[in-house]
Order: sequence, then C-alpha cells, then structure tokens
Amino acid sequence: MLIAHAYAAPSADGDLVPTTIERRDVGPHDVLIEIKFAGICHSDIHTVRGEWGPQQYPLVPGHEIAGIVTEVGTAVTKHSVGDRVGVGCMVNSCGECVNCKKGEEQYCLAGNTGTYGAVDRDGTITQGGYSTHVVVTENFVVSIPEGIELDVAAPLLCAGVTTYSPLRHWGAGPGKKVAVVGLGGLGHMAVKLAHAMGAEVSVLSQSLKKQEDGLKLGADHYYATSDEATFTDLAGSFDLIINTVSASIDISSYLQLLSLDGAMVNVGAPAEPLPVNAFALIGGRRSFAGSMIGGIRETQEMLDFCAEHHLGAEIEVIPAGKINEAYERVLASDVRYRFVIDTSTLS
Amino acid sequence: MLIAHAYAAPSADGDLVPTTIERRDVGPHDVLIEIKFAGICHSDIHTVRGEWGPQQYPLVPGHEIAGIVTEVGTAVTKHSVGDRVGVGCMVNSCGECVNCKKGEEQYCLAGNTGTYGAVDRDGTITQGGYSTHVVVTENFVVSIPEGIELDVAAPLLCAGVTTYSPLRHWGAGPGKKVAVVGLGGLGHMAVKLAHAMGAEVSVLSQSLKKQEDGLKLGADHYYATSDEATFTDLAGSFDLIINTVSASIDISSYLQLLSLDGAMVNVGAPAEPLPVNAFALIGGRRSFAGSMIGGIRETQEMLDFCAEHHLGAEIEVIPAGKINEAYERVLASDVRYRFVIDTSTLS
Repeated sequence: MLIAHAYAAPSADGDLVPTTIERRDVGPHDVLIEIKFAGICHSDIHTVRGEWGPQQYPLVPGHEIAGIVTEVGTAVTKHSVGDRVGVGCMVNSCGECVNCKKGEEQYCLAGNTGTYGAVDRDGTITQGGYSTHVVVTENFVVSIPEGIELDVAAPLLCAGVTTYSPLRHWGAGPGKKVAVVGLGGLGHMAVKLAHAMGAEVSVLSQSLKKQEDGLKLGADHYYATSDEATFTDLAGSFDLIINTVSASIDISSYLQLLSLDGAMVNVGAPAEPLPVNAFALIGGRRSFAGSMIGGIRETQEMLDFCAEHHLGAEIEVIPAGKINEAYERVLASDVRYRFVIDTSTLS
Repeated sequence: MLIAHAYAAPSADGDLVPTTIERRDVGPHDVLIEIKFAGICHSDIHTVRGEWGPQQYPLVPGHEIAGIVTEVGTAVTKHSVGDRVGVGCMVNSCGECVNCKKGEEQYCLAGNTGTYGAVDRDGTITQGGYSTHVVVTENFVVSIPEGIELDVAAPLLCAGVTTYSPLRHWGAGPGKKVAVVGLGGLGHMAVKLAHAMGAEVSVLSQSLKKQEDGLKLGADHYYATSDEATFTDLAGSFDLIINTVSASIDISSYLQLLSLDGAMVNVGAPAEPLPVNAFALIGGRRSFAGSMIGGIRETQEMLDFCAEHHLGAEIEVIPAGKINEAYERVLASDVRYRFVIDTSTLS
C-alpha cells in the first residue's frame, strides 16, 4: 500500500484541501504511475459539487493524468518503468461485452469505471489525478509519445480524445466543413484537431472576444452566435458541428446550419432535455447525436496523431494551492484554455 | 389544355367535393398520365385542413399516384404511351443544386415542387392525384414494374419510399435489428420492406391490437409501448428505429432502446419541438435523425425492389364518394393500412 499526497473535496460545498490517500498494491496487471501533471476539467467541478449526483467524500478529482511509470506488475507487458504515460476518464471496464470487445470501453454495457468517484472492482471508490501517484490496470494506461511534453499532454486525455473521437467517427477531413460550438477546454482542442485532420474549421462562439485566438489555433472562420445573421448566412453550411457547450443552447437553430446528411454532435449535455424541432432533422436528413470520450485504442491513436502534428493543449500550469481559485476561474470562463496542476507541489 | 375530373377541398374546413380542373398542355418533356389509383395519405388531411400552413383553395390532394401514360412530349425518352407509371410527393425540383445533382431532389435547396398545393414553375398551384389525369415532367415520373398491381403500387409512391429510403440509408439488412414505431400506413410498409431486406424486425405499437397483422406483414417481434417493461427489457437492443408516428412521443425513452451507434429516424414530425435528453445520445453515440421521402432514382429502386420481393401496400380500395368518410377513418386509425381511390369513379 502506498500513501500518495492529494487534493480532495471534503464535501459538495467545501474547498478542496491537501490530504493523503492510499493507493492499492501493484497487482500483476497494474502499473504504478508517478503523476507529473493533472488537468482541471469542468466536469471535475460538476462532480465534486454533487451536481451530477451524490458523491462519497473526501473525493479526489482529476481524469487528465500524465506521468512516469515507476513500477509494473509481474504480468505487465505494455508498459515499463520510466515510460511516459497517461490515464484518462476511465480506469477499467468489463472487457467482455460487445462494446468492450470493439474497443469502445467508454460504452461498456456494465458501465466503465470512472477514474474518480466510481466503485472500483474491489469495492473501493476510485480517486483521481490531483495526486502524486495512481495505480491503474495496464490496459487503461496509454503511452505519451516523445514530442509531446507531459504538461500539454495531460488535457489530451479527456479534452483531446472527447473531441478527436467524434471528429474521426463523423469523418472530419479534407473537403469537410466542421463547426465547433464554444471555444473552451474542449472547443480549443476540437479546433486544433479538426484543422490538423484537414477540415475547414469554423468556430461558433457567443462573441468575437476570442476570435484572434481561434484563428491562431487553426480555425478558418470565426462567427458570433449573438449575431442573428450568423444563423441565416450559414444555413446549410456544415457537414459536422461539434457542440462543446454543456449549457442549454437552441439546438434546432444549429441543426439548420447543417448540410444534407450533416450531424450535430454533443460532447456535453445539460441536465434538462433539449427541445429539438424534428422538421429541422427531416428537412436535410440531419442527425442530432452524442459522443462520450473515446476508447483506449482511440486514445492512443489520438496521442500519436497529436505527436505527429505537434499538438498539445493550451495550458496554464498552476501549483496545487491555486486549485480552488482555478475552479472559480473555470466557472467564469477565465481560462485559456486549460488549467494543469503541477503535482510536484502536492507534497 | 385538358379538363380532368377531380375531388377537391373547397376550404380548410369543408368536405371534399367533385370538381373539374385544368391540366396543362403536354410540353416537350411532359408525360400525360391517366390516373388509375390514388392513395390517401395522412398528410393529405393535414394539408387540406390548413394544419401545415395556409393553402389556396380549391385544392386537390393526392401524392400516391399510379396510372398509365396516354401521351408523351416530343422530347420524352423515359416513358412511352401505355407505360405503367407512378408519381409521388414531388413533381419538380431545380435540378441544379448539389442535392439535386446527387439525386436527392427531395432535399432540393430551392425547394422541391410538391405534387399538390405548391407553386409550380409557371406560377400555378399544383393539384394532386385525386384526379383522372395529371401532366408531369418525365424526370419525376417513375416506372411501375410488371408484377405490382397499380392499386397496391400507389401507396408505395409515398409510404413506400418514405420508409425504404431511411432503411437503406441507415443500413437495414441481415444482422441488423430494426424497430418500427407505429403500425399505420407508413409503419406497415416499413415492416414489409425491412423484413424483405433481411433485418430482424420488431414493431413497437401502443397496444397489441394489431399484433397478428404485424407478424403476418413480416415482423419477428411485436411489443406494446403502453407496457413499461418494453422499455426496460429492450434497452440497448436496436440498430435502427424508424419512427412513423407524427404525434409527440417520448423520444428519449426510445433512444435508450438503441445499441451503440444506433439511430432513431423520424419520418414524420409534430409541429412542436421534441424534448431530447442529450445523455441518452452521448451514452451510446446514438443519433436522433430525420428523413424525408426519397429521391427519384431511389423511388424507382424501391419499386423494383418491391416487384422483386412481391411487395405492395395493404389497401382498401374506395370510390371517390367515400373520400370524406375515409378521412374520418384515417383520423380514427381505422384503416388497414391504406385507402386507395379508384379514380374511375371520379367522372
């Protein structure tokens, strides 16, 4: 048993505080990772504050983990001590269901095991990446290729794969027009990735405040959704819209921006149902769809793609002591574009 | 100019009455059709009653037309006098836009010209199939193969292609599990077609009242949606759900019945937006989609497929004098499964 330093939420309404947690002994298939960097995802905040259901506390969030392997189990074949590795939103799945066998562990029919706040196979509650160490079964540990620094790699494990997966699934590439709704943690990765895939990329953001950034990140066009002309001028324009905004937006207006057979894909969702005008779907054989992170094989593919294209997240590295402040800044959309905790400051 | 006998709605709230209408002279690319049978589609009722927007009256509905060619224009190459032909929901489109060029004239960016109640290229209002004759440009006239009687062919021009097209587009076939919501005019064709394509077909109907029929039509399974167990027992079951119900149903419950990458496709729609739980989409990379009739090439393909598989609609042939009564029976769901007007009774 290893004692790791960590930052944990003591309750749904308390600030995160320094603590220590136990990590299990390294089993035959396990990898012990010394965490170097952990990204702060908006869903960390939703979860620790109980907005997505009740939690057990203290809870250590964090599912954008980059670090170095310091020990491997006797049966481990995929990773070696010293390897640069990452862990994303899940640390296990049944491995037996039709979806797991397809390599789509995120859709495991038994439910994948979340990196934090989930019941692990041994009955304990998983604890996440705001921590100095973590023990994970080797199949849920991916390799971070040379050429991507660990700090900019960390957010790829959630924000990267969550946008990479639907871009690939819905065929983003040369000749395709892709729109990204919202330029935040997920949105900025969607822009970089879609651009690297060869698509023509537009950002649809509330205002033009981040336009300069958006174009630098790889967008070809940038439009303000507060301007009604955006919705008339761009009607029928896009093959694919990736919606990274979790708040309730007027889906039917965005559907009208799709061309024949176009799809609008939500990677986040508000708690309340979204009203959808079925005529907007029928009028162009359009789809309103959803996508959740990506499988492990696809996560590795995404990291390799990022290395090949020299992509990483745009980050602001913070010490652990700034986590609570960072949460407030995330809620105020005051981050360009991801906070990453330097975990050496935890102990 | 030809005078045709017809049945027309004199206003949004009056019964249909016998009348005569003018059909244009046969132009170089036109085909004159002596209509033998015309199906009664639920959308005829919505349209003549002004429920889908204001209309010009008198209005002759009918977009499920089967008949015989009696004259062709000088430049016509596709059809000859004596040919058995059909006309569906549209009689023209721009022919120039990207969707028309793909053979998806139903999604014409300039708007296709509806078979009735639409502004034709010459500024007149199109009049539909409850009529003895119609003149249509040859590209919007399809051939009805030998082996399908004209009466059972008529409903294929709308109900047939409206269900055939999404079944093909979303890959219904061997190894695929397809559910059809609603066993009416469209639903009964969806069952026949999906079965003929080799899919495993389930009907999801409010009650088990039509179960015997459904199984005879080709369904492998039949479930009552009034039974809550249907939604728990079948969770994650279907690759494709074709929703033929235009009334507002709880889309999110149906989405949960889809397996990974499954799609629920509406071929009809209520006027008000449908609430969709985005988590139901995200949890299985599911899609909520829509589809509108089919292109002309695909309509021909559908008719050839029906001939090959000896498929036609289940019909009740009525004389013109029974049209108003038939409307009431359609509204009361008292039809198995399509009324077809014998147009020889019009004059």
